[in-house]
Amino acid sequence: MSELVLFTYDWVPDAPRGFVRDLRVRWALEEAGLPYRVESVSFAERSAEHFAHQPFGQVPWLQDRDVSIFESGAILLHLGAMSPALMPEDPAGRARVTQWVFAALNSVEMASLPLMIFRFSGDTTETPGRKGLEKFLDGRLSRMETALAGREWIAGDFSIADILMSDVLRSVERAGGLGEYPVCRAYVERATARPAFVKAYDDQIAHFAAADG
Amino acid sequence: MSELVLFTYDWVPDAPRGFVRDLRVRWALEEAGLPYRVESVSFAERSAEHFAHQPFGQVPWLQDRDVSIFESGAILLHLGAMSPALMPEDPAGRARVTQWVFAALNSVEMASLPLMIFRFSGDTTETPGRKGLEKFLDGRLSRMETALAGREWIAGDFSIADILMSDVLRSVERAGGLGEYPVCRAYVERATARPAFVKAYDDQIAHFAAADG
Repeated sequence: MSELVLFTYDWVPDAPRGFVRDLRVRWALEEAGLPYRVESVSFAERSAEHFAHQPFGQVPWLQDRDVSIFESGAILLHLGAMSPALMPEDPAGRARVTQWVFAALNSVEMASLPLMIFRFSGDTTETPGRKGLEKFLDGRLSRMETALAGREWIAGDFSIADILMSDVLRSVERAGGLGEYPVCRAYVERATARPAFVKAYDDQIAHFAAADG
Repeated sequence: MSELVLFTYDWVPDAPRGFVRDLRVRWALEEAGLPYRVESVSFAERSAEHFAHQPFGQVPWLQDRDVSIFESGAILLHLGAMSPALMPEDPAGRARVTQWVFAALNSVEMASLPLMIFRFSGDTTETPGRKGLEKFLDGRLSRMETALAGREWIAGDFSIADILMSDVLRSVERAGGLGEYPVCRAYVERATARPAFVKAYDDQIAHFAAADG
């Protein structure tokens, strides 16, 4: 019996399918070949139990025996310690991966996700604020274009840092934002061609489709 | 001789003083009583050496013998493993702290920092995009107000999660954004009253003031 349980929504609208963050955890579990099962919680009504495990009412969270963890970055570090396919075992290698885990979330996604929220608001006004946000993201993407040049993966061998960084850049690409960043685009292509990503993606699509009835 | 070296800018303008992220690292080092020294890199001109250690051209980074680490979250996890004053030693306690480390950066700061960039652009237009960003931050602060209710610290005893969460909320407060969140405000007050914060803050102010000549 598997003791790793991944919690995600029972259903989501079409737009976020293939991009719900449980995908990052599925992908890591598939890369490591760790057995797990998926359980669903209501998207329509967030229960007190849900908030007890994920204080922002989001998904995913992971249950590993008596330990419950939320935040995809924290879950991936937890899984990383369980498999050298996800994170090196030497301290220098771990530090290298950990810094890029945070960079994906706190330096790149911090610039991309709010801009998407801004755009999804249906706002088309060219204001100084919007330009400030776009400059913020462009600055980060330019630096990633340099950081990834000549590298297959961002922190040595493939690791959880690549799962997070390529997933963040994949969202930017979907919004049409990687046009000027061919190195980032090729990196996303390389990462999403991995069998573990394809399995994770297909499984998430099937999971939400099953709820359509 | 200390082997921990914290790298920060030699100088910054007045506005960010007291808020440059090396403060998070200084604070953790002071809490743990770990010896360290501070080295400066040019703010005016970012060298190739700077980008080699911090690919986004920012600060801080930490040198621990042959390991160099950037991203304040990654640095604090590294230091956390060196002292029980910063992070519990049992796996469940570590998971609890780690998830809140990521929550501070990827759930709360992700909502606050871009909104500040937006506001600092001098934008006063009430557009749907701006409202979307403000709703995003308000949603996160409301959840923090609930999560912190009845708790002294966010993940058990005081830990690196509190250093990051209170520092993120301190920036929101500075922008006048905690008016409706008395629990968050009291938490920031409690955290910043700690002697280690006061020392770290004073040291950062003195460091940049020294460069004024």
